[in-house]
Amino acid sequence: MDELFVATVVSPWKQVVKRLDERWASLNDEQLEMQVAPCKNRLFYLLGHLTAVHDRMLPLLGIGERLHPELDDAYITNPDRTVPDPFSSDDLKQAWSEVNAAITSAVEKFSHDDWLKKHTAVSDVDFSKDPTRNRLAVFLSRTNHASFHTGQIALAK
Amino acid sequence: MDELFVATVVSPWKQVVKRLDERWASLNDEQLEMQVAPCKNRLFYLLGHLTAVHDRMLPLLGIGERLHPELDDAYITNPDRTVPDPFSSDDLKQAWSEVNAAITSAVEKFSHDDWLKKHTAVSDVDFSKDPTRNRLAVFLSRTNHASFHTGQIALAK
Repeated sequence: MDELFVATVVSPWKQVVKRLDERWASLNDEQLEMQVAPCKNRLFYLLGHLTAVHDRMLPLLGIGERLHPELDDAYITNPDRTVPDPFSSDDLKQAWSEVNAAITSAVEKFSHDDWLKKHTAVSDVDFSKDPTRNRLAVFLSRTNHASFHTGQIALAK
Repeated sequence: MDELFVATVVSPWKQVVKRLDERWASLNDEQLEMQVAPCKNRLFYLLGHLTAVHDRMLPLLGIGERLHPELDDAYITNPDRTVPDPFSSDDLKQAWSEVNAAITSAVEKFSHDDWLKKHTAVSDVDFSKDPTRNRLAVFLSRTNHASFHTGQIALAK
């Protein structure tokens, strides 16, 4: 039962990551400079943004240290086109793959109880008041965040 | 533990529905005719599309008959601007609210085991081969689908 539950909650994450993997692989440097709509984020920015947000999941889920904290300034703290891109597209695509592989590998080993443990950004006191602030909540939230931007990315042709 | 699990998986659904509730409420008829990007879907179409897709969840999750099957032709089977809108914006917003209320009310009563039962579009044989084709999978998939289009809707100002 636990295995089934874990497989079911991890599946949408794997699907959205795979969809984005295929999208990034299909884009050359010029295409990555496309914007999802006029005056909106570049695809390159969203690749960096999703990589940085997923990288933050490693400590948040208690599964490891961050791999690429140097992405935050360009892709979380600041809006698109205000800070130089710190990585080449190839390096950024590689970071994307590494970060997601680390997350998927770790969460696939989570038991039912592991999922319901607190995430690291909530205190023991706050968690005792609201036990839905658990790892599963973070994981589902980030999966939906990836879907949110995937919808935007789908608009750029 | 079951209650906590149910609350955690239902929370992202409630969040995305609430976010869209607020978005639709803020839009008048003229604004609903905006497109998410040049030559892409109107907001009105996405309101209809999400209502129809969620309406289909009622039989799919085994929680009731469809409330608005008449939306499928305009918002699932055909692309935007090829079929007349069957409802006024007020009626469509009301349908959106009714459908989501019915789903939320039903799934909040699901036990852990209820979530892992098969959805109604999979046969007993296929479900025995792949038990991840359960109600939770449908629910998480549709939540991510709503997030996908919410990302697009956020681009239209």
